Amino acid sequence: MKMNDIVKAIDNSPSVALITHINPDGDAIGSTLALMHALDKIGKLVDVYCQDDIPNTFYFLNGISRIIKPDQSIKKYDLVIALDCSDPERMGSCSVIMDKAIISANIDHHISNTLYSDINVVDGDASATGEIVYELINLLEIIPDKDIAEALYTAIVSDTGRFSYSNTTPKTHRVVATLIEWGADIDKLSNLLFKNHSLEWIKLLGQAINSLRIYHDGKVAIMHITKEMMAKAGATEEHSNGIIQYAKDISGVELAAVLREVDDSTIKVSLRSQSIVDVSVLAKKFGGGGHRRASGCTINLPLIQAQENLMKAIDLYFEE
Amino acid sequence: MKMNDIVKAIDNSPSVALITHINPDGDAIGSTLALMHALDKIGKLVDVYCQDDIPNTFYFLNGISRIIKPDQSIKKYDLVIALDCSDPERMGSCSVIMDKAIISANIDHHISNTLYSDINVVDGDASATGEIVYELINLLEIIPDKDIAEALYTAIVSDTGRFSYSNTTPKTHRVVATLIEWGADIDKLSNLLFKNHSLEWIKLLGQAINSLRIYHDGKVAIMHITKEMMAKAGATEEHSNGIIQYAKDISGVELAAVLREVDDSTIKVSLRSQSIVDVSVLAKKFGGGGHRRASGCTINLPLIQAQENLMKAIDLYFEE
Repeated sequence: MKMNDIVKAIDNSPSVALITHINPDGDAIGSTLALMHALDKIGKLVDVYCQDDIPNTFYFLNGISRIIKPDQSIKKYDLVIALDCSDPERMGSCSVIMDKAIISANIDHHISNTLYSDINVVDGDASATGEIVYELINLLEIIPDKDIAEALYTAIVSDTGRFSYSNTTPKTHRVVATLIEWGADIDKLSNLLFKNHSLEWIKLLGQAINSLRIYHDGKVAIMHITKEMMAKAGATEEHSNGIIQYAKDISGVELAAVLREVDDSTIKVSLRSQSIVDVSVLAKKFGGGGHRRASGCTINLPLIQAQENLMKAIDLYFEE
Repeated sequence: MKMNDIVKAIDNSPSVALITHINPDGDAIGSTLALMHALDKIGKLVDVYCQDDIPNTFYFLNGISRIIKPDQSIKKYDLVIALDCSDPERMGSCSVIMDKAIISANIDHHISNTLYSDINVVDGDASATGEIVYELINLLEIIPDKDIAEALYTAIVSDTGRFSYSNTTPKTHRVVATLIEWGADIDKLSNLLFKNHSLEWIKLLGQAINSLRIYHDGKVAIMHITKEMMAKAGATEEHSNGIIQYAKDISGVELAAVLREVDDSTIKVSLRSQSIVDVSVLAKKFGGGGHRRASGCTINLPLIQAQENLMKAIDLYFEE
């Protein structure tokens, strides 16, 4: 970690741009907004960039409308900081802003970070980039406020799966304790972040659950989402997020899959495993990829045939 | 709080009985098991009582099988401690054990506690009884271990709704930080407590969602569960727990209801509200009761008529 270097760089830079990653999540948005609010407080000129749209879920955060998409006239900043981006590609079209920076920096908690900036503040032990930004804000001796606290809480609670994943450390909980003291209204935040489903999502969930089939003595759970189900629920692609969790979280299930019909011969497959099957290998058989516990692929066949082919590949893992 | 008194009473008592409340939840079970493990470590003879069955969810906790139901030959203990019981009735049939105690004590976080024992350790600011037991274990200078840590984590994560309710304080998070240092495997615990649904529950959820109806511009969400749906899912009454949350958590919903058909002319109604309607008043109109945000009643009519009557009462809250 080069924490002192970034503190110095901030001290010496009147204009700062913050960039976060494509398809931004809670940590991307929360850690970036928190640093924006903090830099505001010490008189920096701060612009904030993200290539993609911000999910509705996060609209309630103060300052969210200041996250903009890059335009053609790229400004030159004294300091450009990428947050939660493990490599420059994660910035998408925003990477050109960093290219023009006088000093570039990178704050991230991914151990795979490629250290692509002048200053690289990378801590693989941090639960979230928000946890590192918390440290930075303390070092900058900024007087914290509710906006900073709620942005950092959003970052940390998102990337730890509500403090449930193994990346959640004693330090994580101690940081969160301080964020509550800084004014984070966790009852409100929890309601907005986790208890605020769209009607389309809930309707799609109901239909997807009704398609549930169980195989191999309860170890495999498969759901599908047809175009017709999407239409009936008034749902778009984003409403299918999180539905696979309901297949995976059934007691005894080791492997879960959701097949979503994009068109008559294009099926997007999401795969999850509990603790044994490496689903990245399974996805790779169909030209996809991902991680051991979460992966995906696209099968260019009608739904029924796609499901048959997938099941044949899954069967190999569970036959005696 | 009489923390020093209970420390002295424990020091002076070779035999101790612990009692927790009827229909035990995560805090009841977790706080009681943690104190049991702690008292084991300092050589006490400890028996643990609960009138009712322990929900399957908690079977994984070490020592859970030592929680027994009271039999007819009531033993006399030097010290009997009730945990998480705001009044003696909460002990159910176990209260006779406290009646025979040489010294009685009560550890609880409900502000409504009736201070019914010789020693009453009541802290309404604690998120869970487990948080008070954590303090007690520290004062007893017991060397903590994984069993104690996991029982206390279960207590606190349950009663705070995964650290989301407003009872979650900075201290709560700092206690949990220490529990992780004591060995609590939070990844495992989160999976077992929150990501471990029965197939019956998930099937019933899917059907209940398919019955969802929305009224009053999205402010009212109603679901029903028929006997036929229960049979199709292979579900029993306990599998309907938590389903109403899916109606309440739809964006914009102020009032949610689930009507469950017990028999042809008995409908159990659960009611929840977000922030305005006092659903205890609504339930009272049908002879039920509860809290402002969560209540219930029974309507002795066939499902369709019960729903009509309920809707008439609900309409009054939402008409201009």
